[in-house]
Amino acid sequence: MSPVMKNRREFLQKSGLIAAGAALPTAVAPKTNMNFIHHVLFWAKNPSNQAEVTQLKNALVSLGKLPMIQQVHVGSPVVTDFDKSVTDGSYSFSVVMVFENAQKESEYLHHPLHLKFIDENKHLWSKVVVMDSVQ
Amino acid sequence: MSPVMKNRREFLQKSGLIAAGAALPTAVAPKTNMNFIHHVLFWAKNPSNQAEVTQLKNALVSLGKLPMIQQVHVGSPVVTDFDKSVTDGSYSFSVVMVFENAQKESEYLHHPLHLKFIDENKHLWSKVVVMDSVQ
Repeated sequence: MSPVMKNRREFLQKSGLIAAGAALPTAVAPKTNMNFIHHVLFWAKNPSNQAEVTQLKNALVSLGKLPMIQQVHVGSPVVTDFDKSVTDGSYSFSVVMVFENAQKESEYLHHPLHLKFIDENKHLWSKVVVMDSVQ
Repeated sequence: MSPVMKNRREFLQKSGLIAAGAALPTAVAPKTNMNFIHHVLFWAKNPSNQAEVTQLKNALVSLGKLPMIQQVHVGSPVVTDFDKSVTDGSYSFSVVMVFENAQKESEYLHHPLHLKFIDENKHLWSKVVVMDSVQ
């Protein structure tokens, strides 16, 4: 085994990407644990006002950079043929944030930049729905 | 710079975890891209029937092992003081699946094991709501 591979194995093991003794994956695609999910749907107040919709999306994307958020997704609705009869695709933006635990979500919710985001953008939405869950 | 650090930097760059020339992070905590999200809320038909609720949860956890699912979360509701007035915590289970793209979600939706899951467990829920979104 080359020194490079040995170091790669050590790195993968130390970062918990593979178990000690496990075969090295050909591509690193671990199923990362998503312990705590904060999912928020936003309905834009004026969906046809492109400037407002863009402002809201940009603000959401910026917010996702806060360091206690493990992973973030700011998406638009998709309705598949398969699930059409039970899908809610009426919202403007879906924001999914992954946290290590409830404490990290609480840090996020009370963070000054989150409070500032609400203050500066709340006139842009007519409704929000939050779905939080823990494994 | 030690050879180990050089190799770690090369590995991080090749796997896209850091940009070429960027400073090495002190802890490796990449914000993995979550391009396509399939979020399903399940309301158990008989929430007080522990055997039924456990059967549904176990079936959902098994389903999450299908290989085209990048990441999965099978959780129970959390209602925070911060978001209480806008939170839906009425469901039994929240299932969040991350896919690379819509095609991978379609493979999952039409997979025989997903169809079998619906067939064998649909008597256990009274309602499902799907929220799909793409970045």
